[in-house]
Amino acid sequence: MPPATTALVVLDLVGVLAFAVNGAMTAIRTARLDIVGVITLGTITALGGGFIRDIFLDDLPPATFRDWRYLAVAALGAFIAFLLSKRLERLARPINVLDAAGLSLFAVTGTLKGLEAGLGVAQSIILGGVTAVGGGTLRDVLLREIPAILYSGLYLIPALVAAGITAIVFSAGLHPLPWTVVAAVMCFTIRMIGVRYDLNAPRPRL
Amino acid sequence: MPPATTALVVLDLVGVLAFAVNGAMTAIRTARLDIVGVITLGTITALGGGFIRDIFLDDLPPATFRDWRYLAVAALGAFIAFLLSKRLERLARPINVLDAAGLSLFAVTGTLKGLEAGLGVAQSIILGGVTAVGGGTLRDVLLREIPAILYSGLYLIPALVAAGITAIVFSAGLHPLPWTVVAAVMCFTIRMIGVRYDLNAPRPRL
Amino acid sequence: MPPATTALVVLDLVGVLAFAVNGAMTAIRTARLDIVGVITLGTITALGGGFIRDIFLDDLPPATFRDWRYLAVAALGAFIAFLLSKRLERLARPINVLDAAGLSLFAVTGTLKGLEAGLGVAQSIILGGVTAVGGGTLRDVLLREIPAILYSGLYLIPALVAAGITAIVFSAGLHPLPWTVVAAVMCFTIRMIGVRYDLNAPRPRL
Repeated sequence: MPPATTALVVLDLVGVLAFAVNGAMTAIRTARLDIVGVITLGTITALGGGFIRDIFLDDLPPATFRDWRYLAVAALGAFIAFLLSKRLERLARPINVLDAAGLSLFAVTGTLKGLEAGLGVAQSIILGGVTAVGGGTLRDVLLREIPAILYSGLYLIPALVAAGITAIVFSAGLHPLPWTVVAAVMCFTIRMIGVRYDLNAPRPRL
Repeated sequence: MPPATTALVVLDLVGVLAFAVNGAMTAIRTARLDIVGVITLGTITALGGGFIRDIFLDDLPPATFRDWRYLAVAALGAFIAFLLSKRLERLARPINVLDAAGLSLFAVTGTLKGLEAGLGVAQSIILGGVTAVGGGTLRDVLLREIPAILYSGLYLIPALVAAGITAIVFSAGLHPLPWTVVAAVMCFTIRMIGVRYDLNAPRPRL
Repeated sequence: MPPATTALVVLDLVGVLAFAVNGAMTAIRTARLDIVGVITLGTITALGGGFIRDIFLDDLPPATFRDWRYLAVAALGAFIAFLLSKRLERLARPINVLDAAGLSLFAVTGTLKGLEAGLGVAQSIILGGVTAVGGGTLRDVLLREIPAILYSGLYLIPALVAAGITAIVFSAGLHPLPWTVVAAVMCFTIRMIGVRYDLNAPRPRL
């Protein structure tokens, strides 16, 4: 396995872990689910984006299902969140931080996977966005919340920024690794600024 | 590209445009979303039916994603609806008219795509129905509405009527184009009569 | 067709019938849908789990769509439930019994299909669980209920028990048929005990 691919898998697994803990914590806070519900929702949040990505890419069975490491990291992350729920409950911020981290990492890895599969630049950027927001959208639908992607302006936009940087760097033939870190950090920063100041994109004039 | 295929793509793109504007207007009216949410929901409404259709057909990556024209028409339609939201807000009827137009066009094009892929007649009719109602169902689930397909009797039925006419004509070896227009107009008319007089299919006796 | 495969198809079709009647009855009780909504929801409940399973397996178009028997049994089951709705309404228990029956049968058949496709044991067990809960989860999302898989502790667990027994027996080279019946009965029993005594898995301590 070439080093770039290894790095990509590591970034992907960190994203899976962040979303697994986030999904599990959301399950605990929002709906008072039991351990099965917490682990299920954490796993769906963690693996859902990659699942939708792989349907788009016709890379089935999905990589997140074929490769046991994804399943193990997702279930383990959700289980740890369940065990620590009493302590995590007091901290409201980690849910947003973990969501922003997963968003940033999946935007980058989803875009790279699309580019490596030979998709066009526009399609790869869209694929990065879908990968980034897919898991959280499934999480919100299952909990009967309106998905963040629809009402929170600075959610999809930072993901597309990171996806765009990744696609440009890749197309320019640069070694993607350092730049993907820059792209992910930028996405994370924009997202957290949006959360902190409750910023949104323009609304329709009615 | 043979002329029938070109005509099919044109009908498909008009359906995409109708559903994109419809999804965007629904987003504006129902949930007061910002520009990102409006364009996202418009795009999902426009491309969701074709996406589910292509999973059924194993035609992945989905045509609506491979072919930039679908993405462009969907995003543009939703963006125009966002810009004109102040004027469109006063008009309640266009939402239903656009939904019926998308329903009619996708019922026909979905059925034809199934028949051309070699599916049986029953499967092609079901595929036409799925294509027609898929995008609107995703739209309603994301906005936490009960999907129209479940409670509105004259929603799936006109789509299946159009799909049935299309399948019969195709199987009889007739040139499909003029008949698909007849089928789409019939679906549109039945749907609009259903909306106008609030007609429904029989309900269970309790 | 070898006898084991025939038996598998029969078990699968009984599961489809159970979920079709269950989905239709849920539609009648919960949301007062008309005949189109009842048959649509029954069919989605019956075929949704197999549809998601076949996406995971890259066995597209999904078997439940290619094979007319699945479509026929699903639609017929939902239609019968609609006709008998007045009598079925008085019986609250059948909804849970049918759901448990479909859960048990699909857990077994989904796992076997995964093993026969060459998936690993862990993946096949997960696939059995996904097949078992998929249709009911789609049903609940469309009706805007929080899916049973998330809040009802003894829903996914019995499905995974049946999937686990099936996988062990298959890997040991035993003839799967008698054991799959044992696995399904065990899943059904655990689920019904859970429903009867309202048992749940541990909840997070807050």
